[in-house]
Amino acid sequence: MSVKALIMAGGVGKRFWPKSTVDKPKQFLKITSDKTMIQETFARINRLIPKENICVVTNRDHENHIFAQLDIPKKNVLLEPAMRNTAAAIGYGMVFFDTDDILIVLPSDHYIADIERFLGTLRVAIEFARNNDAIVTLGIKPTRPETGYGYIEIEDISPELMQVYPVKKFREKPNLETAYAYLETGRFFWNSGMFIFRIAVMEEAFEMYMPQLYRAIRSMRTSKGEENFYEMVEEEYGKLESISIDYGVLERATNVYVIPSEFGWSDVGSWDALYELSMKDNNGNHIEAKESIVRDVNNCMILAEGKKIAIAHVEDLIVITEGDTILIMKRGTSQDVKMMAKE
Amino acid sequence: MSVKALIMAGGVGKRFWPKSTVDKPKQFLKITSDKTMIQETFARINRLIPKENICVVTNRDHENHIFAQLDIPKKNVLLEPAMRNTAAAIGYGMVFFDTDDILIVLPSDHYIADIERFLGTLRVAIEFARNNDAIVTLGIKPTRPETGYGYIEIEDISPELMQVYPVKKFREKPNLETAYAYLETGRFFWNSGMFIFRIAVMEEAFEMYMPQLYRAIRSMRTSKGEENFYEMVEEEYGKLESISIDYGVLERATNVYVIPSEFGWSDVGSWDALYELSMKDNNGNHIEAKESIVRDVNNCMILAEGKKIAIAHVEDLIVITEGDTILIMKRGTSQDVKMMAKE
Repeated sequence: MSVKALIMAGGVGKRFWPKSTVDKPKQFLKITSDKTMIQETFARINRLIPKENICVVTNRDHENHIFAQLDIPKKNVLLEPAMRNTAAAIGYGMVFFDTDDILIVLPSDHYIADIERFLGTLRVAIEFARNNDAIVTLGIKPTRPETGYGYIEIEDISPELMQVYPVKKFREKPNLETAYAYLETGRFFWNSGMFIFRIAVMEEAFEMYMPQLYRAIRSMRTSKGEENFYEMVEEEYGKLESISIDYGVLERATNVYVIPSEFGWSDVGSWDALYELSMKDNNGNHIEAKESIVRDVNNCMILAEGKKIAIAHVEDLIVITEGDTILIMKRGTSQDVKMMAKE
Repeated sequence: MSVKALIMAGGVGKRFWPKSTVDKPKQFLKITSDKTMIQETFARINRLIPKENICVVTNRDHENHIFAQLDIPKKNVLLEPAMRNTAAAIGYGMVFFDTDDILIVLPSDHYIADIERFLGTLRVAIEFARNNDAIVTLGIKPTRPETGYGYIEIEDISPELMQVYPVKKFREKPNLETAYAYLETGRFFWNSGMFIFRIAVMEEAFEMYMPQLYRAIRSMRTSKGEENFYEMVEEEYGKLESISIDYGVLERATNVYVIPSEFGWSDVGSWDALYELSMKDNNGNHIEAKESIVRDVNNCMILAEGKKIAIAHVEDLIVITEGDTILIMKRGTSQDVKMMAKE
C-alpha cells in the first residue's frame, strides 16, 4: 500500500482562447507563471510523492505536450482512448494502481498559492483515507459569493480548517442570492475537484453507483499485461457513459468527506480570474509585452508577448494576443470567450 | 503662361503612428481609400492639369515612395536638399516654373469628398489669379468649432461660396470659446493650405517679406541648367529660414484673397479625424481585419489588416495594428499619438 497521484489532464476547454485551443488547452499553457499549469501541478505533488508514483491521464492527442513538458516515465502516462469525462478517466487510471493504494486525484490546471498548506491538507486527507472507508474531498473556504463553482455543504456550524467533515450535500452552481447565503453560513465550500481515497473504496462506490464502469474496470484490470490489453480498453472505453465523478459517484455515495481548506486556490477559469491572481502595478495593470507605452490606463490586463503595445486613456480592458489573433474585451465579460472561440 | 501644380509632400508627421513613421509618413499611406493620400491628390489634380505640369516637392529620403506610387517624370520630382518648411519648399518649386505661370500649391495628404466642386473652386481661383495680382487661398466653410485649424477671416457678413473675398486677417488656432464665436459669425474659414497665384506675384511677395528667400530663388533660377546647379541649391537651401508660407508671407501680404469653399474637405489630421470620415456599420464601427468576431461593440475603429480580431463589450476605442505593434486608445484622445510615437 502506497500513496499515488493521478493528474487529470484530459480537458479541452477554450476559456483561454486565443491562447488555448483544442490542440493546446489550458493545462499545457504558461498561465500563472513561466511554467505551464501541468508543470506546476506535477512539481507541487512531486514534493509529496515520488515521480514513479505520479500518473497523468490525458487525451491521446495531447501525448506530445505531456512528454515535452514533463520528465515522466512513458508507463505513467495513461492515454484515454476516447473522451468520457472524469468518472471514466479516474476509473481507467485506477486500473494501473493496486486496490490498497491511496489515490490523490488532481486537476492539472489549477493554481495554488500556498503549497505548504496544500501539502499539509493532503497529508490529513491521506491519513483519513488510510484509516476509513472514505472518499475525501478538499473543499475551498469561499472568499466571495462565486456563482461559477459547485459547493459542498456540511452539517457542522463552525467548521475548522484541515479537519474532516462528512458531506451533507453537493450543491450545483448557485445563483448570486444563494451564493451570498452559502457564504454567510460558513458551512459551504467550493468543490476543488481534488479527491483522496483508497482504490478499493472507490471501486466499491463504482460497483454500487456506476456498475457498467465497475465491470469495465474489473475486466481491464484482469487483462492488464496481456497482449490485447489496449484493444480491449479501446472497445470497453468507447462504450462507457460520459459523466463526471461528481454526478456519477460523489453526489450519491454516503461515505464522502470534505476537508475545509484554505491555500490560495483558484481554478483560473477565465481571463478575469487570471487578472484577479496577477501581479499588478499601482494602477491595477498587468502588462506583458516586448515593449509598452502606457498613458492613463487603469485596471487592464495585457498579455502580448513579443508585441509592442501602445495604450492610452482606457480602463478595465483585457487584451490578449496570440500570433495574428487579438482579443480585446471589457473586464468582467470573459465568460464570453468560449463562445467567441467557437465562431 | 500655363497652369502648373506643386504637390507638397515633405511632411514627416507621426500622427498616424504606428502606420506612419519618419520613413513613411501619412502622404504615402492608404488612409482614406485603397490608394495612398498622394496618389489621391495626384489623380485629383490630374483631372484639371496634365501630368507634365504637375510637380511634387519632397524630402530626398522619400524619393523612393514617390516613384513607387506615382507615374511621374523624374524631372517633375523636386527633392528638398534639407527640411526648411513650406515657404522654402514653395520657393524652390517656383524656380522650375516660368514667372508668368499660375501655380496651384496643394498639400499631399488631405481628403476631399466632392472632387467636382473642388475642381470648380480651383477654376474660379485660377481665373482670379490670372486677372489680378492676387494670392488666392481656399478657405473651408467650418462645420464645427474646430480648435485644430487656423482660420481665415473676411470682412463680408454674408459671404457666398466660390466667390473671392479679400482676407482681413489670418487667425491662429483658437480656443474652443473663440472657435464657437468664429463659427457663429460665418466670416471665418479653415485654412486649407491650398494657394493659387502667379509665380511673379509670389516672387514679389517674397521680395518684400522674405528677401533672403527671394535672393536664393533668383540665383537658383539664374543657375538653372548649369553644371553646378544642385551644389549651389544645396548650399543656398541649407541657409534658408525654416518658416511656413503662412507666417512668412500670407499673414503679412495685402493682396491675399480667399474663396469660401465646401467640398467635403478634411486634413485627416488624426485617427479620430479618420474615424469621422470612415464608413461605419449600424453600430458606428469601422473594422478592417482578416477576420473579426464582434459582440456588443459600439463606435470603434479597428484597422488590423491581416489580423484576426475578437472584440467584445467595449465602445469608443481606436485599435490600430502595424506589424507587431498594437495601438489601443480611447476615441477622442488621438492627439496623444505623436507623443506616444516618440517614446
